[in-house]
Amino acid sequence: MQIQFLGTGAGMPSKERNTSSIAFKLLEERGSIWLFDCGEATQHQILHTTVKPRKIDKIFITHLHGDHIFGLPGFLSSRSFLGGEDMLTIYGPAGLQQWIEQTLQLSKTHLTYPIEFVEVKDGIVFEDEKFTVRALSLQHVVPCFGYRIEQKPMQGELLIDKALALGVPKGPLLGQLKAGHSVKLEDGTVVESSDVTSPPQPGFTVAILGDTKYCENSIRLAQNADVVVHEATFDHSTIELAGKYGHATNTEAAKIAKEAQARHLLLNHISARFLKHDLIPFLEEAKAIFENSYLANDFSQYEWRKNELLEIE
Amino acid sequence: MQIQFLGTGAGMPSKERNTSSIAFKLLEERGSIWLFDCGEATQHQILHTTVKPRKIDKIFITHLHGDHIFGLPGFLSSRSFLGGEDMLTIYGPAGLQQWIEQTLQLSKTHLTYPIEFVEVKDGIVFEDEKFTVRALSLQHVVPCFGYRIEQKPMQGELLIDKALALGVPKGPLLGQLKAGHSVKLEDGTVVESSDVTSPPQPGFTVAILGDTKYCENSIRLAQNADVVVHEATFDHSTIELAGKYGHATNTEAAKIAKEAQARHLLLNHISARFLKHDLIPFLEEAKAIFENSYLANDFSQYEWRKNELLEIE
Repeated sequence: MQIQFLGTGAGMPSKERNTSSIAFKLLEERGSIWLFDCGEATQHQILHTTVKPRKIDKIFITHLHGDHIFGLPGFLSSRSFLGGEDMLTIYGPAGLQQWIEQTLQLSKTHLTYPIEFVEVKDGIVFEDEKFTVRALSLQHVVPCFGYRIEQKPMQGELLIDKALALGVPKGPLLGQLKAGHSVKLEDGTVVESSDVTSPPQPGFTVAILGDTKYCENSIRLAQNADVVVHEATFDHSTIELAGKYGHATNTEAAKIAKEAQARHLLLNHISARFLKHDLIPFLEEAKAIFENSYLANDFSQYEWRKNELLEIE
Repeated sequence: MQIQFLGTGAGMPSKERNTSSIAFKLLEERGSIWLFDCGEATQHQILHTTVKPRKIDKIFITHLHGDHIFGLPGFLSSRSFLGGEDMLTIYGPAGLQQWIEQTLQLSKTHLTYPIEFVEVKDGIVFEDEKFTVRALSLQHVVPCFGYRIEQKPMQGELLIDKALALGVPKGPLLGQLKAGHSVKLEDGTVVESSDVTSPPQPGFTVAILGDTKYCENSIRLAQNADVVVHEATFDHSTIELAGKYGHATNTEAAKIAKEAQARHLLLNHISARFLKHDLIPFLEEAKAIFENSYLANDFSQYEWRKNELLEIE
C-alpha cells in the first residue's frame, strides 16, 4: 500500500499545492488504485506520477466543495480517452451522482466504461474479502465524511519445510493447508493448517478524513489506525478562523491522532497562508503533541512496508 | 491588446499543453481582460502569468465540450476568493448558465460578485463605444461558435502645435477639439477639429474561432482580420480524422486565413499526437499556404502594437 498526495492545498490551488486529491495505491493488494477526492487538475497532477487513470477503480469523495470535486468531470473523461474500460465506482454524498450525470450530458462526454454510484452514509460503504471501508460524518460547513480503510488479516505463510517434515507430499495437499484446511495423509495422520502456517498477519488500517473541525467521529475513525490523514488548514495562532470555517488546526489534528492512539499522522489540506518557512514551526507544533506527525506535500508518497510507514521517492 | 494562450491542447491536458483558454488582454483599451474558453486548470495556468482574475470581466465560451468549460467553476470560485467584486459576463451556448448555477449550488460556492449570462446566437453579442463582438456558428460535433472582435476606429491625436499656431489658447478648448468638436476663438475664428487632429485610426479586428471543420463562417469571421486564431487539431496526413471528429487541419486553417485575406494566423488546439519535432513541419505546411502563420504554445503571448503583431515574452 502506498499513499501519494496529489493535492495538499486548501480551497484554492497555489503554485505549490493543488486542490485535494490522494491516490491510495493498492497495486500489490488489488492491482488497483483508489482516489480520495478529486479537486480541479487532479488529472494534471497525475501526469507527473506513475498513476494510470484506468487503474483507478474507486473514487471516494469526502464532500462537495469545489476544491474536492471539480476535477472529477475532466478525470472521468480522460480515463475514457486513455482506454479505461473497467467499471468505476464513485462513493460520495447525496447530490454527487446527479451533478456528474448532468455535467457529462451537458458536455456530451461519452465514457467507454460504466460508473456505479454509491451514496455514502455513516457505516460500511464497501466490503469484500480483503477490505472494509467505513464512513462517518465529520463536522464541516457542509455534509462531509471521513473514511476508515481496514485491510482484513492476511493468511499466514505456508511453512513448507515444516509441512514436508511432517510427511506432507509435494502437491495439492500443500495448497489445502495454505488455504487453512486440515489434511489427512495416506498413513492416516491428520495435519492441521495451523501446524504448518505462520499466524495470520494483521492488515493495515488507514483513516482518510475530509475537511472538519476537531470532532469525536475523527477519533473513532482514527482509532488505533496505522496512518491518519487529517486536515490542518490552520495553525494554533489562527484557531479562531479554523472554527469559523469548519476546519481544524495542526494541533487539533495531532490531538485527534494522540487520542485515537494512532501510529502516524499525515497533515494535509494546508492553507496557502503558510509559506515554506512557516511550515517548520507548523509541523513542530503538531509533533509536540503527537511525535509521529508528518507534513504532506504535493507528490509526497508514503509506503506501508513490514508494518512500518516509509516516505519514498 | 495582447493575446496570451493559457491552453493550446486538444481534448485532454498533456504536460506541454493545457485544455483551451485564451486571455485577450485589453488593459490599455479597457483596463480589463476577456477570456475565451476556460478548460480545466485555466486558473492554475493563470498562476504562472501576470493575469489577475478580478481583471477578467467577460468570458466567451465557444462550445460546451469539457476541455473548453471544466475550468469555469473553479475559476469563478477563485475570482471570488481573490477579491473580485465587479460583475462578470459569461457569453456561451444554451445550457451553460444552468450548468454553472447547478454547479455553484451543489458545491455551495457563494460568489462575491454578480454574473450576467448571455446566451450566444449568431449576430452581435456585445457592443459598446469601443468594441463590437459578433458570433457565428461553426461546424463541430456540437453547437460551437467563433467570435469576431472589432475595435472601433479611434479618434485621431490632437496636433497641439498646429492648434496653438492657429491661435487656440491652452485650456478647455483644446479638449473640445480633441473630442471632435469645432471651437470659436475670441476673435471669432472657427477652428475645426479635423484641422488640428490626425485622422481617426482604424481599430484592430481579431477572430477567435472554436473547434470546427473548415467552413464558410470561419472565413466570414476572419475576413480581413488582423489576427485569426484557428484550431489545427490535425495535420494534412490525418485529415480523415479531422473530418470524423469535426476538427480542422493546419492546412485548412491556413486556407481559411488566406481566403479571408487575414493578416496573421495563430494555430491553436494542437493534438498531443504531435511531438515537438513534428511541429516544425506542421507549421511549415501551414506557412506554405499562408506565410504569416504562427504556432500557439501555452503561455505564448502576442501584442498588437502600431498595427503590427509582435510575439513578446
